Amino acid sequence: MSLSTLEAPIKDKQTTSTMKAAVFHAPGQITLDSVPIPKAGAGEAVIRVTLTTICGTDLHILKGEYAVKPGLIIGHEPVGIIHELGAGLTGYKVGDRVLVGAITPCGQCNYCLGGNWSQCGGPLGGWKFGNTINGAQAEYLLVPHAQANLAKIPDELADEQVVLLADIASTGISAAESGHVQIGDTVAVFAQGPIGLCATAGAKLKGASLIIAVESDPVRTEMSKRMGADVVLDFSKEDVIESIKHLTRGRGVDVAIEALGTQSTFENALRAIRAGGTLSSLGVYSGKLALPLDAFAAGLGDHKIVTTLCPGGKERMRRLIELVRQGRIDLVPLLTHTFALEDIKDAYDLFGSRRDGVIKVAIRP
Amino acid sequence: MSLSTLEAPIKDKQTTSTMKAAVFHAPGQITLDSVPIPKAGAGEAVIRVTLTTICGTDLHILKGEYAVKPGLIIGHEPVGIIHELGAGLTGYKVGDRVLVGAITPCGQCNYCLGGNWSQCGGPLGGWKFGNTINGAQAEYLLVPHAQANLAKIPDELADEQVVLLADIASTGISAAESGHVQIGDTVAVFAQGPIGLCATAGAKLKGASLIIAVESDPVRTEMSKRMGADVVLDFSKEDVIESIKHLTRGRGVDVAIEALGTQSTFENALRAIRAGGTLSSLGVYSGKLALPLDAFAAGLGDHKIVTTLCPGGKERMRRLIELVRQGRIDLVPLLTHTFALEDIKDAYDLFGSRRDGVIKVAIRP
Amino acid sequence: MSLSTLEAPIKDKQTTSTMKAAVFHAPGQITLDSVPIPKAGAGEAVIRVTLTTICGTDLHILKGEYAVKPGLIIGHEPVGIIHELGAGLTGYKVGDRVLVGAITPCGQCNYCLGGNWSQCGGPLGGWKFGNTINGAQAEYLLVPHAQANLAKIPDELADEQVVLLADIASTGISAAESGHVQIGDTVAVFAQGPIGLCATAGAKLKGASLIIAVESDPVRTEMSKRMGADVVLDFSKEDVIESIKHLTRGRGVDVAIEALGTQSTFENALRAIRAGGTLSSLGVYSGKLALPLDAFAAGLGDHKIVTTLCPGGKERMRRLIELVRQGRIDLVPLLTHTFALEDIKDAYDLFGSRRDGVIKVAIRP
Amino acid sequence: MSLSTLEAPIKDKQTTSTMKAAVFHAPGQITLDSVPIPKAGAGEAVIRVTLTTICGTDLHILKGEYAVKPGLIIGHEPVGIIHELGAGLTGYKVGDRVLVGAITPCGQCNYCLGGNWSQCGGPLGGWKFGNTINGAQAEYLLVPHAQANLAKIPDELADEQVVLLADIASTGISAAESGHVQIGDTVAVFAQGPIGLCATAGAKLKGASLIIAVESDPVRTEMSKRMGADVVLDFSKEDVIESIKHLTRGRGVDVAIEALGTQSTFENALRAIRAGGTLSSLGVYSGKLALPLDAFAAGLGDHKIVTTLCPGGKERMRRLIELVRQGRIDLVPLLTHTFALEDIKDAYDLFGSRRDGVIKVAIRP
Repeated sequence: MSLSTLEAPIKDKQTTSTMKAAVFHAPGQITLDSVPIPKAGAGEAVIRVTLTTICGTDLHILKGEYAVKPGLIIGHEPVGIIHELGAGLTGYKVGDRVLVGAITPCGQCNYCLGGNWSQCGGPLGGWKFGNTINGAQAEYLLVPHAQANLAKIPDELADEQVVLLADIASTGISAAESGHVQIGDTVAVFAQGPIGLCATAGAKLKGASLIIAVESDPVRTEMSKRMGADVVLDFSKEDVIESIKHLTRGRGVDVAIEALGTQSTFENALRAIRAGGTLSSLGVYSGKLALPLDAFAAGLGDHKIVTTLCPGGKERMRRLIELVRQGRIDLVPLLTHTFALEDIKDAYDLFGSRRDGVIKVAIRP
Repeated sequence: MSLSTLEAPIKDKQTTSTMKAAVFHAPGQITLDSVPIPKAGAGEAVIRVTLTTICGTDLHILKGEYAVKPGLIIGHEPVGIIHELGAGLTGYKVGDRVLVGAITPCGQCNYCLGGNWSQCGGPLGGWKFGNTINGAQAEYLLVPHAQANLAKIPDELADEQVVLLADIASTGISAAESGHVQIGDTVAVFAQGPIGLCATAGAKLKGASLIIAVESDPVRTEMSKRMGADVVLDFSKEDVIESIKHLTRGRGVDVAIEALGTQSTFENALRAIRAGGTLSSLGVYSGKLALPLDAFAAGLGDHKIVTTLCPGGKERMRRLIELVRQGRIDLVPLLTHTFALEDIKDAYDLFGSRRDGVIKVAIRP
Repeated sequence: MSLSTLEAPIKDKQTTSTMKAAVFHAPGQITLDSVPIPKAGAGEAVIRVTLTTICGTDLHILKGEYAVKPGLIIGHEPVGIIHELGAGLTGYKVGDRVLVGAITPCGQCNYCLGGNWSQCGGPLGGWKFGNTINGAQAEYLLVPHAQANLAKIPDELADEQVVLLADIASTGISAAESGHVQIGDTVAVFAQGPIGLCATAGAKLKGASLIIAVESDPVRTEMSKRMGADVVLDFSKEDVIESIKHLTRGRGVDVAIEALGTQSTFENALRAIRAGGTLSSLGVYSGKLALPLDAFAAGLGDHKIVTTLCPGGKERMRRLIELVRQGRIDLVPLLTHTFALEDIKDAYDLFGSRRDGVIKVAIRP
Repeated sequence: MSLSTLEAPIKDKQTTSTMKAAVFHAPGQITLDSVPIPKAGAGEAVIRVTLTTICGTDLHILKGEYAVKPGLIIGHEPVGIIHELGAGLTGYKVGDRVLVGAITPCGQCNYCLGGNWSQCGGPLGGWKFGNTINGAQAEYLLVPHAQANLAKIPDELADEQVVLLADIASTGISAAESGHVQIGDTVAVFAQGPIGLCATAGAKLKGASLIIAVESDPVRTEMSKRMGADVVLDFSKEDVIESIKHLTRGRGVDVAIEALGTQSTFENALRAIRAGGTLSSLGVYSGKLALPLDAFAAGLGDHKIVTTLCPGGKERMRRLIELVRQGRIDLVPLLTHTFALEDIKDAYDLFGSRRDGVIKVAIRP
């Protein structure tokens, strides 16, 4: 007798065998194609996507800046309904509404079992959706390591309330966690794009006292205050470092969060922190960064620089969902525009252009 | 030539040499006496107290439960104006408005230099005010280790906004800190007296998702919601453990905070936590506690029990003041009644009786 | 196309279908029976056990103190050769020599994905071997969640060098980890049975300065010094608390580890720690523990009490194996006696009696 | 009556009023001058130096790379006898033998009271000896904040056993602490100068399994093994990164420690760490560092870079002394040469030249 429960795959109704999906073909070319609906193998699940979004990373992919293979479906932020369950999954049933994190840890490799889920060493674990395996901008999505990655959504929450938890909210909040923001700390957040806005919310959740955001765009400045910033500095109009020193009485902030990915924001974030402070870096940089030693003070200071990749897994998602359910964070205002999957090209255009006050776009398959 | 700056003591104007103070004489007997105004020695300061309060500990002292020597002035929660500065203090001047924590670390012993300020091993460090040296329920207060313990109050804040930071708010918030409440944790707080209410605020500051308070008094139940509780369970009407398990889907809370000091709340707090959870205990118990092993699961679980003594020192006070200044916490509603120092006997009566919805009393010398 | 790799089960040669195993029938009755060799289902593995041991917990089971069902094979500390691999496992092959931790986390439940692997909530995860599923005192063992639980053993290490890592060494070392022993800390370890001896080794691995063990048995006293104790106090001849205070100049130890499970050792451990110190408890107690408040100082101290269940999973085993490989710990001396599986009754007798200087017994199927 | 104990200064016998001291006059010019013996003000102590040493930082000062004012006595690593105690000190007496850390925290500023003693914000706190106030390469030394900075040396220990704890051992060991080396971690230490050698010892004290040192000098390679390295890679003969990957089975080390201060060691250290690993940097760099993003992986990794300034204060010194007393570390072999204070010029020459297998020089006033 075996200890395992090898159930036959269970599936919900489905009348066709193809679906619409946003497929990367070449730099500059993502088209809505008709492709086969995936099937769930052992340990896998297929979800029918009910809401997804576009990430800044997808824009990088579109520009050809990632080594994504032609033919791959893009996207890594899925909310949906379980459509098919592969063998070996327990505790789920077809029809359950779930959130799937952008990072899909296997839970069973040395990295995962050491608590480094974001660095999952499994061949299908880590950030794979829309990167090396098919992604979420589609009607259906195959989820690897599904036992570890399907987080049920309480009935009282709408898709819009949770979809951003899959990536940017988890990432943004983690910047405050990795930076070990303590109760009463002062925090500066450089750039208030989607991730920076979530980092601002994260700093507030961790009990920061003064939260200083840095942004020049008026829509994002407004949103920044809504997410918890006490002061928003406009770098185009003032010397941000000088203002931060003034606001902190010459001391600098305990934690600076970089959420853009440029040399100047990185360097400013470094200069903004107090002796012994922490720079929590989220930005995706390119080329080389210069660490100016008058700011970094290596060898004569106690600075820390931490970088964080979006934490995933169903427990992370469950915790974030609970924050939404208890009203601790409200991410819906960040979803400024909604598109049907059919119109995803328009969504990419708008999101890429930053026109019309767009922050994040919701895509509804 | 010496490195030190031995300045002559500096004092503000003062026309009399005696002051009014609440003096402990014997169990049941605290009277308002006329006593000499203290003088500041090297490293000390005298503050003219402008606001203080009565702590539950003072009631224990009044009952004779602490080994307090007759003749001692009671009280350990002072806000005031610097009246006299002893030799060797820098960065302060007579007239500065300051908050002094209930615990006065010396900063220079092995405990302090190891980060255990609450356990300060100096003869005048640790909890000494109104315990082994004269306390704050008086017109003037002598502060030992003043360089480490005077936290300036920003002009925009009133005495009432900060006086509770000296002890109960620092203690209550520290329960969430010592219990390592993480973003998204569920927390239960047993008892919503002044410290429990502050622990509730602390759990919210640390990013807990669901906060469950346990209390039966209607005034405190109401206040508990104001401080951040999502649900308040009435132990007189329901099985609290069962309700907590129900609210957490059978799991139990990540962190339980005990804020009363009885066997039954301690035991319930232990039973409320999930496998691997933490009990953060603030209560002052008497006699022996029984650890029921079916709840504690020692040897087969990963439970933690942590106890915390009020963190003090000027840096702690500074951080808490910043939280108030940025509107992260508002403790003024807890000050339900105000008395003149002359009427401190009435204040003790009311506070001891828990009549009239009293939570904390403000005493104005 | 599916993402999964459903391979056909692979097995090594095996000529019979039954094996010898130590089966629990009733309190006082564990017999060597002939039972079917298990078969590996999906995600599972069967290992041919080459070395195992008897744990103090097994003695409790033998006495009927655990709710173990009659018919179950006992034992939870296996070293062996992979005999059969179920579907879905990658990175292993039949014939690999592996260590399996006593605790077998699934890696995919909310507890595991929150870093609480010892508290694994999966039906087959956590401590299950020889408790609710068949155990290791047998020729073959079925391992659930094998992907997460098989740690390869380097060729240069003998079975004897690693078998104790499965449970007591992982547990003992974790006491020092959970107790957050810092470089330069003083540590007292109460009782020098197998787990206490490993806790002593753990304290040394974490950089403790002075390590004080408490034991009266001469063989264990000798072994204690070999494992890292600087001083061994004989509780039958001296006042241990007084001696600890003397050795630490009145201060008490930073961390006390309890490794027996009695009221008196628990209480002594509590009295041995300094203000703000930590009691790291490993003992399996019965009934209720009394927490004497003069020692615990709840509400006026910053004490911590932490309990730890043996950490498992292949990453934990990998790390411990590396310690052995680099010569950081040598556990072989603890294996004082060796028995063939056929003679396991004698092994239980000797181990239970503590005769002949026995510390741990090796069982060779 | 005052709470303070203002004692009259107490002094030991002293027949002259001048002393010999190594004084910095200009780049390249440190001479042994006759200068007045300092006097202790309130809170200060004068120690008669019995042993000191020269630090790499002193060579930088000699070269004019620090803004040290002409006329300053150099040196920051003192062991000595208390010669004079200023007012306000308790627990010490003239004649006590003490170790004073290179960093002298005040214990009473916001940095110190926040646990950032190395970043002490007091005017005389932090790294001041031989930097902004007179230092230790002299017959007598004035110690500011003496209550916080005098650590008594047990009689059984010789000066040579503890002198290196004042700076390089505290710094080196702290690299392992700041890098959060866990039991079983693999660690690489780049460069085995005095600080790197102590970092190697620190990694071993923290329970690392495999410790890989990088060094080409044969004397330092030999010493590295003595301090705990399992393998020493010679960067002049092999591709260090490739060897590290090979030794860690392709994974990289958990923690890399940089102990030289050049772009290439910094970059190699970054490339040596595993996904999610930590670079603990001790080196004093000059100019700008380049962070190569293929190594740093900012935005797609979870790397940490931590820098640490020598932890000081008497509690730190006490803990390190205890390590020596219990035989956990032996730093005496690092003191390869001894000079009289009169011959300090020769000592600088030898130490600066790295001739004759010099690692550290002892200076005996």
